[in-house]
Amino acid sequence: MVGVVTTPTSFPPAAQTASEPATISPEQYGVGARFTLSVYDSDYVRIILGALSECDASGLTVETNDISTFVSGSEQRVLSYLRDVIAAAAASGAHLSAAILLSRGCPGELACALPPGVPALGAAPIALPETGVRARAHWSLYPLLDAGADAGAESVSAAPQDHMAPIYAAIEGAKASGVFSGSDHFATRLDGDLALVLETVANAWIGVGCVVQHVVTHLTVSINSPTLISDETPA
Amino acid sequence: MVGVVTTPTSFPPAAQTASEPATISPEQYGVGARFTLSVYDSDYVRIILGALSECDASGLTVETNDISTFVSGSEQRVLSYLRDVIAAAAASGAHLSAAILLSRGCPGELACALPPGVPALGAAPIALPETGVRARAHWSLYPLLDAGADAGAESVSAAPQDHMAPIYAAIEGAKASGVFSGSDHFATRLDGDLALVLETVANAWIGVGCVVQHVVTHLTVSINSPTLISDETPA
Repeated sequence: MVGVVTTPTSFPPAAQTASEPATISPEQYGVGARFTLSVYDSDYVRIILGALSECDASGLTVETNDISTFVSGSEQRVLSYLRDVIAAAAASGAHLSAAILLSRGCPGELACALPPGVPALGAAPIALPETGVRARAHWSLYPLLDAGADAGAESVSAAPQDHMAPIYAAIEGAKASGVFSGSDHFATRLDGDLALVLETVANAWIGVGCVVQHVVTHLTVSINSPTLISDETPA
Repeated sequence: MVGVVTTPTSFPPAAQTASEPATISPEQYGVGARFTLSVYDSDYVRIILGALSECDASGLTVETNDISTFVSGSEQRVLSYLRDVIAAAAASGAHLSAAILLSRGCPGELACALPPGVPALGAAPIALPETGVRARAHWSLYPLLDAGADAGAESVSAAPQDHMAPIYAAIEGAKASGVFSGSDHFATRLDGDLALVLETVANAWIGVGCVVQHVVTHLTVSINSPTLISDETPA
């Protein structure tokens, strides 16, 4: 990722192994999200601030600025918060989109701030209660080739050979969950309850994270769309 | 990327080398964008359709659906189109955001559809005329660890050692262009004329693309923001 490392890194030494993940917190491992909630309505300020204020952010670091909102914490808490905020905004009935980035394995921005020897760390799958809100989305999943990818832990150096398996598994998982809706250029289309869409994406990201240290996934969700923009190519 | 390959691959055989890039078209190499333009205004349909219709899409494949718009063509044409569409929507005065994905080196979605032996292909830097529209953005740049990253062409197999250099160069480029505005978690902040922001991001993506086959960059642009959402953590 482009950027200058701003997050202090206070990781345990390289003796850390995959069988002892508990000593690295999700925050230390860079587990978190950045999302932009866009409301296609002139009353957007009330809708967005209302959604942010009524959701439970306990156990999380949440920082909102004029471009996006950063959320850090455990996988389950981060995704629960995203579900709650987006569903709350959707309850307004307004058309909205959310551009969501989930990242793990890189608490900084430029080169991975994780020292060599930190293995790829997965996590338990998350589960979210249904929302009753239908979401259509474009999804991309990125195992990253950064400095950590060829330096250090066995699980990371093994990644180039092994990481496609969990990606294929992610596709199968999306199909099994019923949210897979087709393939477009650069992205997979998902369609289903907002909670199930987020759950599918997050569990694929966690799954690839078991074999690749630094994994990012991007999701653009569309809700309450009048589908007024046709499939026609603009003239 | 997650997804099922849907794009036919009709690449020249492996004799192709980096010194003969002209025989692979940008479309064949998977050069393109996917973007979601969000207008925070109840009049969004008129604003978005108006912006799409008044811009020159010649030489491009453009497909719009209810989630996002796909654009494929040469780097210069794709970025010119993005500049024109976003600037046209911004002229409405409405607050808007654009979630933009630029991708190169993978015309399909799941595993790279490029056969082994296709080298990493850069391109000439792009240049865009100023818009007079101020854009603030969050930017991430992803060299991808996919199947192509350890199979085939010399330039690709060299990537793990070499690819950080163009990323550092990208940071320096952003600073030199004056649009670098700081580092946040998972993203770099940019601030400047929309054209310069897009130019900086695209040329970094092209630069990393010279040494890594499959490179994706994501940019979330905010324009005409009233900055009514404070920097405070929601309660």
